[in-house]
Amino acid sequence: MLKKITEEMTKAGSIAILPHIAADGDAIGSSVALAIGLSEAGKEVSVLLEEKVPQIYNFLPGIEMARVYDADDRKYDLAVALDCGDLDRLGSRRPVFDKTPVTVNIDHHPTNTGFAMLDLVDPSCAAVAEIIFALFRQMGIVPGKDAAICLYTAIASDTGGFRYSNTTYVTHIIASELIKTGIDVAEISRRIFDTVSPAKVRLMGEAINSLELYEDGRIAVMTVSNAAMRRSGASDEDTDGIINIARNISGVEAAAMIREMENGDIKVNLRSNSYVDVSQAASKYSGGGHRRAAGFTVSGTDMGKVMEMLLEDLRGML
Amino acid sequence: MLKKITEEMTKAGSIAILPHIAADGDAIGSSVALAIGLSEAGKEVSVLLEEKVPQIYNFLPGIEMARVYDADDRKYDLAVALDCGDLDRLGSRRPVFDKTPVTVNIDHHPTNTGFAMLDLVDPSCAAVAEIIFALFRQMGIVPGKDAAICLYTAIASDTGGFRYSNTTYVTHIIASELIKTGIDVAEISRRIFDTVSPAKVRLMGEAINSLELYEDGRIAVMTVSNAAMRRSGASDEDTDGIINIARNISGVEAAAMIREMENGDIKVNLRSNSYVDVSQAASKYSGGGHRRAAGFTVSGTDMGKVMEMLLEDLRGML
Repeated sequence: MLKKITEEMTKAGSIAILPHIAADGDAIGSSVALAIGLSEAGKEVSVLLEEKVPQIYNFLPGIEMARVYDADDRKYDLAVALDCGDLDRLGSRRPVFDKTPVTVNIDHHPTNTGFAMLDLVDPSCAAVAEIIFALFRQMGIVPGKDAAICLYTAIASDTGGFRYSNTTYVTHIIASELIKTGIDVAEISRRIFDTVSPAKVRLMGEAINSLELYEDGRIAVMTVSNAAMRRSGASDEDTDGIINIARNISGVEAAAMIREMENGDIKVNLRSNSYVDVSQAASKYSGGGHRRAAGFTVSGTDMGKVMEMLLEDLRGML
Repeated sequence: MLKKITEEMTKAGSIAILPHIAADGDAIGSSVALAIGLSEAGKEVSVLLEEKVPQIYNFLPGIEMARVYDADDRKYDLAVALDCGDLDRLGSRRPVFDKTPVTVNIDHHPTNTGFAMLDLVDPSCAAVAEIIFALFRQMGIVPGKDAAICLYTAIASDTGGFRYSNTTYVTHIIASELIKTGIDVAEISRRIFDTVSPAKVRLMGEAINSLELYEDGRIAVMTVSNAAMRRSGASDEDTDGIINIARNISGVEAAAMIREMENGDIKVNLRSNSYVDVSQAASKYSGGGHRRAAGFTVSGTDMGKVMEMLLEDLRGML
């Protein structure tokens, strides 16, 4: 399939690259890296996004090749859906894909539906960037420093900095090759991992202030009220990952973040470290998730009552 | 030198491994990995520590070969100082080194004083674990899963999870080889990076509560009083890294943590991100450090006054 895609890309004059909606580090980094490589090979390339580039990825060299799709009528010889498990992940850009004569699907989700003329799906890859690296090899494209920065960013993002279980020995071999181009690993890491908005830091403080430990420190619960959200100036997006503060406390097995939403609903995030199946607790309240990460939303109650119910559930599972 | 050390280790029957005082992930991980390798090669090996193993490294396989040195009279054929820049880093264990007939110094500090009969110092290595990996190659020792867990822990610790500027392409090649043994990267990463004591989390909350931004958010200052330390139940050790909360805020160039010590002294930690030379500010108060990380301690004043002086200094450097 690598060979077939190489053939088609070599034939094409203009190429559209379409990462998934709400593009993350792998989607954007891999798209821009591919755009750099194909541009250098003489192609006219556009990366078409659903939303504007998240601030954090503006440092990527070549990011100027990415723009928000504005429903224009431009035609391309070839379109690549990148990091999209299915066609819905293209959002409003689906017409671009539908009307392009040659379509390619490059992805690593095991659930990929195989929706293109040419499907290159490898779930063993931690990031789509690993597939782009292989494609470059096949096409005879040697990634320079700019493409390497994009690919490294993509891989570091999707592996949590080589920490998640998707990290393989191949991931490190590719990182090694990318570093040989002279990229500044410390600077990239600082940009993607160590930059937090003032509002998020204040939200972390609010969450920690609310922290309560139960059952000899095996259960940790944080509550975030509407008032706390307002005081910190945090947005919904800023609540991402806050639950990990509770989960990462030594001795904690089950962690919960109980959050009051603007409409009065109560949203609960649950995490566990070793043996508690938090999806069981979540499903009791029509929520979902898996053993180590789950959640649910309830209406017509308050944070105190939810906390009481939840503690009873979690205590029973220790 | 690798070859010479291999020869001497092959001849030796009993070997003492001495990591530096206040041993960290690299010192302990590399020591235990070397102990595992040498034990499997039929040697009698002891890892002698200055202090007991920090809780966080108790999961390392082979850690039972490490014990706190109790000034016993045992004799060894060969002693290895590991990750020690000079002999002072051996603390109370210096007599062990002095009375052993063959001494080896394995280190990566550029300032290493070359204090042993056989000095193997490579400052290009991100961690001593990289040197141990090379030594194993030379000795024909193939690291199994247990030694690999120790070496991976050592490398991940000293590179901040492959994020610091000391990370090279060789670091990733070695990580790749270690992963091939089947180690659980996610579990190790969770243990070394994502485990925080309840007291430290509370201290983070106290520090965030005190956070003030100045000069359009380019200066961030946190203050930690004795009362805050008591409320959180935190120890001195828990203050490690707290300054990064301030430094990592988007838009911040210079960050300070002002801390009241038990004896009334005021200790200041300084960090910068891109251009402010915080060592200049520190040297004004007889402190030290380098451009991006520095600190100083002053007596006979209070946190408010220190904050005022420091803000004036930092404003002048923006």
